[in-house]
Amino acid sequence: MQARRKVYVEGSRPDVRVPFAEVELTGDNPPVRLYDTSGPGSDPEVGLPPLRGPWIAERGDVAPVRGAGTPLAGVTGKRPTQIGYARAGIVTPEMEFVAIREGVTPEFVRDEIAAGRAVLPLNVNHPECEPAIIGKAFLVKVNANIGTSAVTSSVAEEVEKLTWATRWGADTVMDLSTGRRIHETREAIVRNSPVPIGTVPIYQALEKVGGDPVKLSWEVFRDTVVEQAEQGVDYMTVHAGVLLPYVPLAVDRVTGIVSRGGSIMAAWCLAHHEENFLYTHFAELCEILVRYDVTFSLGDGLRPGSIADANDEAQFAELRTLGELTGVAWEHDVQVMIEGPGHVPMHKIKENVDLQQEWCHQAPFYTLGPLTTDIAPAYDHITSAIGAAMIGMFGTAMLCYVTPKEHLGLPDRDDVKAGVIAYKIAAHAADLAKGHPGAQARDDALSKARFEFRWEDQFNLSLDPETARAYHDATLPAQPAKTAHFCSMCGPKFCSMKITQELKDYAARGMRDKSEEFVASGSRVYLPLA
Amino acid sequence: MQARRKVYVEGSRPDVRVPFAEVELTGDNPPVRLYDTSGPGSDPEVGLPPLRGPWIAERGDVAPVRGAGTPLAGVTGKRPTQIGYARAGIVTPEMEFVAIREGVTPEFVRDEIAAGRAVLPLNVNHPECEPAIIGKAFLVKVNANIGTSAVTSSVAEEVEKLTWATRWGADTVMDLSTGRRIHETREAIVRNSPVPIGTVPIYQALEKVGGDPVKLSWEVFRDTVVEQAEQGVDYMTVHAGVLLPYVPLAVDRVTGIVSRGGSIMAAWCLAHHEENFLYTHFAELCEILVRYDVTFSLGDGLRPGSIADANDEAQFAELRTLGELTGVAWEHDVQVMIEGPGHVPMHKIKENVDLQQEWCHQAPFYTLGPLTTDIAPAYDHITSAIGAAMIGMFGTAMLCYVTPKEHLGLPDRDDVKAGVIAYKIAAHAADLAKGHPGAQARDDALSKARFEFRWEDQFNLSLDPETARAYHDATLPAQPAKTAHFCSMCGPKFCSMKITQELKDYAARGMRDKSEEFVASGSRVYLPLA
Repeated sequence: MQARRKVYVEGSRPDVRVPFAEVELTGDNPPVRLYDTSGPGSDPEVGLPPLRGPWIAERGDVAPVRGAGTPLAGVTGKRPTQIGYARAGIVTPEMEFVAIREGVTPEFVRDEIAAGRAVLPLNVNHPECEPAIIGKAFLVKVNANIGTSAVTSSVAEEVEKLTWATRWGADTVMDLSTGRRIHETREAIVRNSPVPIGTVPIYQALEKVGGDPVKLSWEVFRDTVVEQAEQGVDYMTVHAGVLLPYVPLAVDRVTGIVSRGGSIMAAWCLAHHEENFLYTHFAELCEILVRYDVTFSLGDGLRPGSIADANDEAQFAELRTLGELTGVAWEHDVQVMIEGPGHVPMHKIKENVDLQQEWCHQAPFYTLGPLTTDIAPAYDHITSAIGAAMIGMFGTAMLCYVTPKEHLGLPDRDDVKAGVIAYKIAAHAADLAKGHPGAQARDDALSKARFEFRWEDQFNLSLDPETARAYHDATLPAQPAKTAHFCSMCGPKFCSMKITQELKDYAARGMRDKSEEFVASGSRVYLPLA
Repeated sequence: MQARRKVYVEGSRPDVRVPFAEVELTGDNPPVRLYDTSGPGSDPEVGLPPLRGPWIAERGDVAPVRGAGTPLAGVTGKRPTQIGYARAGIVTPEMEFVAIREGVTPEFVRDEIAAGRAVLPLNVNHPECEPAIIGKAFLVKVNANIGTSAVTSSVAEEVEKLTWATRWGADTVMDLSTGRRIHETREAIVRNSPVPIGTVPIYQALEKVGGDPVKLSWEVFRDTVVEQAEQGVDYMTVHAGVLLPYVPLAVDRVTGIVSRGGSIMAAWCLAHHEENFLYTHFAELCEILVRYDVTFSLGDGLRPGSIADANDEAQFAELRTLGELTGVAWEHDVQVMIEGPGHVPMHKIKENVDLQQEWCHQAPFYTLGPLTTDIAPAYDHITSAIGAAMIGMFGTAMLCYVTPKEHLGLPDRDDVKAGVIAYKIAAHAADLAKGHPGAQARDDALSKARFEFRWEDQFNLSLDPETARAYHDATLPAQPAKTAHFCSMCGPKFCSMKITQELKDYAARGMRDKSEEFVASGSRVYLPLA
């Protein structure tokens, strides 16, 4: 029944093949091509094919770190990053790939990356990844968080969640695993991921020191970053802006510090009464990340965890520091995006984007929600989709999803889907509001199908064809209803669409002096139910 | 387990008793009082007690229309409407009731009603109704649509949906029944409703003429309005702004006319080539409505049904006419609110409110969503909650819910709940964004409970305690987990809230020169899982 098939658009070289989901429509309606994140599919035991292998190899700026078969890293004196290439005026196959995906020129992509306004998170050790660009001039992206915890989950389950998340449209996935088997889980995820993978390395570092933040050190963290970079993690959240003097600013909040990474670093800073080692070693960190083209996702460790704490001094003090660090990363040719809140009432959302764009020199903004109220645990995919849509409209480049289980438990498969779909809605609503070229084509095609009672076309163009079809079945299960010229909500007599179609026909015959004819020719404006 | 109980606040007279849901919290945290729409509860066979009976009777301006025991209507020369009383400087018990509900003065309520900026839809034949005020200076309200259709549903089911909708927080309910048994269904709904009931009388009028719009007439419509007014309908949608010259403006739209009432009137206008009889007889209609204090909900028959059609000439032409009709209704001391779209991309939402407020002289705006994208059938409670929250923030007084079944089928019990909760979120987010006094108290109490791991308090303060509790159980089912000082999302080691609480303790002992002591006194910042 599902009339979607994967098609590829070839670029300037045969190995640049960009996937789209093409929806065949009925009648003489042209097919609609949709951005597609589902990847080529494969056996999880084998992993995905290394799409980018040749592109990485032919640049000649990386080599195995410990001999043949070991992970790649930049050779001495080289900076094998997309921002490095872009600044050198080079259009990489990765840039061409996203240009085709987004419907823009490769040069435009290059210039946005060179300016730091967009990132292309693509670790040289993740050749399986289909490039996706994150920046305000492009389609708004959605991230899905997955990951095992000390309390629940298995590796196979997490790989399935990854595949499931990208099937529904997740543009990137963060592996937030804690507990045992972090390394193994991540390996399975990266090898099977057609989308960029992000992590928060401090979680694994903390496991290595037995869970005691006070025992953390730059060395443990550094080694963890190298380990993850060698596995192919595309972007890493680093809470380098949680500075010692900012910690007291969060103490009197309603919900203190709600970022795990932020609270870990705050605990370390206070216990040692020293400045955050991620901040003091930030240049060294850049020197590591540049070798693998790992993108920074500068974490907002002091993000507000409640409406009461939004846009406060602690949050904005950290944001200013993230702006400073953005400049340092760029000096090293390392790509950067900036993480944002959290919980923010609607009237305070725009200020977040405006200050982030100003202080962080237009580096891409990547926000969690924000949730626009605290009162609806079990529905925070909705409280936050409202904030996400708005913050996307104002210029946020990527939206980190929130599932119905937020604050309550770990997301299962259904929660992952619910979160991704709520966020695809938010991202697309933002694309429409930004007037993104081409974004409205899908809405128009679906609405035209709706108006013309092409039920199957309507289902196939929707974000979730299966559920749309199931809901229609629930009221009008019969197959003929799928071709019925009325809507199950109103029944045949009250179908406004049906009436309008007859008005259209009527108008086509001339609006005036036709009323008599209209009545004579069967003025019944509905189709009796058979 | 649910620690909510109904309490009443008494006004200046003992029969003004305003219900609240009081949430008892643990420890020394004060209880939180919530606005409560659930009504006193009763046997559906008997109906609710006539709370307003004495208030209506003692004013002496209504009398049974056909002798004792028949419905009430204003006696000759009287205008028994809340706007009439307000303009005469009278504070009615109904106004005092809502003043207590909203936490404002009765005089403020009176002045907002007198100015037409707020409405109190309260038919003299619906004494069971607990007054609720709709206006931009008050809490944003939510309407839930129910009703039988030709295709499905029974009377008992609809009464159950009514009770269910008000349990979850619906402030008004519209009975959109079509098909047979319209009168009987409505009677059962009104007698059991603690909230104002709205209808669209043209639906029943159409049934009376065998479903053929061309056979409609002012007389049939008028008699239907009287029938419904005598039953106690509190507000009626009237599509008096769908004028003959506007109909061609909608013909070339992607989705034409999507309002049922709008399409019915458009068909009538074209078939007869006459002006809409609801417009030409509008003054007579006012003379009927004023006798029962039925509030106008001036319908947006030409509202956009797709992103492509938003904010177009057809829509705004009708809106200007609704502004003109608002003035006519006010001359008759009839209360008015204005209905709005529909499908609108985010960047075009504010214009809707601004023009409505300007052209309709600040009469309350009452919108359906709007949906901010067309691509997510089965998730339109979310696509529209985004638009609803925004349009509420900009000054819309009431939001008509959209359920997951919108465009696909008739809402069942679960859909009604999903729709109401999504819209309670939107309305509350709007209240926060408008800085409504007191709105944030619930967020703050819930966030404080969350931060202090008072799980049961968090559940009880939420919009849906049962689901929140069930989701927590899904990950950490054991009862001790309900008192655990960590969140099931992160597990004990990574609980940022736990760490922050220890930072708070640490800060309380002095921020400086304490690191050694912190380490010595057990620097572990987590509670090992027992």
